[in-house]
Amino acid sequence: MSHVFDEAITVQAQSNGVFHAVTHDAYNNMVGPFGGITAATVVNALQQHPDVLGGPLALTINYAAPVANGTLDLRTSIVRTNRTNQHWTFTIEQEGEVVSTGNAVFGVRRESWSDTEAVKPSAPPPETVAAVDFPEFIAWARNYEKRFVVGGLGDDKSPDSTSTLWLRDLPERPLDYPSLASMADAFFPRVFLRHGTYMPAGTITLTTYFHATPAELATQGSDHVLGTAQAGRFGNGHFDQSSQLWGGDVLLATSHQLVYFKDLQG
Amino acid sequence: MSHVFDEAITVQAQSNGVFHAVTHDAYNNMVGPFGGITAATVVNALQQHPDVLGGPLALTINYAAPVANGTLDLRTSIVRTNRTNQHWTFTIEQEGEVVSTGNAVFGVRRESWSDTEAVKPSAPPPETVAAVDFPEFIAWARNYEKRFVVGGLGDDKSPDSTSTLWLRDLPERPLDYPSLASMADAFFPRVFLRHGTYMPAGTITLTTYFHATPAELATQGSDHVLGTAQAGRFGNGHFDQSSQLWGGDVLLATSHQLVYFKDLQG
Repeated sequence: MSHVFDEAITVQAQSNGVFHAVTHDAYNNMVGPFGGITAATVVNALQQHPDVLGGPLALTINYAAPVANGTLDLRTSIVRTNRTNQHWTFTIEQEGEVVSTGNAVFGVRRESWSDTEAVKPSAPPPETVAAVDFPEFIAWARNYEKRFVVGGLGDDKSPDSTSTLWLRDLPERPLDYPSLASMADAFFPRVFLRHGTYMPAGTITLTTYFHATPAELATQGSDHVLGTAQAGRFGNGHFDQSSQLWGGDVLLATSHQLVYFKDLQG
Repeated sequence: MSHVFDEAITVQAQSNGVFHAVTHDAYNNMVGPFGGITAATVVNALQQHPDVLGGPLALTINYAAPVANGTLDLRTSIVRTNRTNQHWTFTIEQEGEVVSTGNAVFGVRRESWSDTEAVKPSAPPPETVAAVDFPEFIAWARNYEKRFVVGGLGDDKSPDSTSTLWLRDLPERPLDYPSLASMADAFFPRVFLRHGTYMPAGTITLTTYFHATPAELATQGSDHVLGTAQAGRFGNGHFDQSSQLWGGDVLLATSHQLVYFKDLQG
């Protein structure tokens, strides 16, 4: 039996780097599909391209217009293949209108010196932290087990926009690059925490760097991922937020996004 | 008399969103032009487009191939103009080959609630910190006054990849969005600090979020900008680094990049 995530990111390869996909209601957000599932669908498609080089290193996706539920045409193009990396651009179209654009870098991971400077947030073991549900209208979140250490959705207004949580697919599913791409967008808009309430907000552009090797993903399996996210600066109708996804002591991915929001002053 | 930075980012608008530019030797890096000046040239061009909406909010540029010294064709396209923001894609071509791709979000800055969570690094006043030169072969750096508080180029091997420095154009020049785009890439590869030596390294993809308002840029004028940058994870031939640019207590821009490097294991 296939996992609902795999159903949601399924693509049908056409010729010339075009992929067809259909949005899946299980990953709906308040308006249209969850941005993370769209990013994951792109990664899934690029990985299947016959001319792909290595694995994903970086993905930027721009949410130019709301994606409607239904079919989408993902048009991918290999701009350049170098010795160890490959540059892609893509668009997502619905009924002939571009709703998303983006670019990706794939590449070969080779042996090198390594170290991690980012600091993993402290968190008690996942089994000691309560799993919570999001409201019904955030459908995609039902496909994730969410155990918030700090900064849960619906918490009181806070001077700090940080959320730290244990996160994994529900039902469990071995981690791969598409699921990392999706989890990187699983942090609700930080402005909700600062105001202790919802307000209109949405990701404009999302950039994710994939640090995990295939071997690290295999080691991670379907264990809980520790995610953390915090905003940088809010103002003038926008803010940036950055996140990290950890598997054990391994920094699996880092991600950054610019978000628009609208409060009573806007 | 025009500033050398303005000479370097000059574009000649053609029809259909195409701009011609010529690289400027004053902003050369070790191989071809400094990535920051290429990013600044793109911002400068988009700002001049007759159909531009508002100012720059986000820029992602992918360095697919080395840019050669000489002429370049910047092809820009407005993908979608919404009520308050506008999505762009672009390519840079040299002799018919794509050397860079990218996308930008422009938009209207409107009144909203505001706050900054990022923490400005502590630094003594710029006049108390020595200005340093980079080696001759890093031409672009001669156009910046650089006063390192920590993490200077050529420092001994360090367990921390952080550089914090006072930075400004040399000669002085009022800060604008193109110069922010350039300064966001003014942090040399963090791996040099960890090893206390140069090694082959280069930015693959760079994303900058522009937080500053036009009024904040005007207040900043040509005062020193406080910049700070640190890596997240090094490994498998790549690492990410993130930076902040501060003007007084104002977070002017945040920026993130993925960098390749090659050490003796690679």
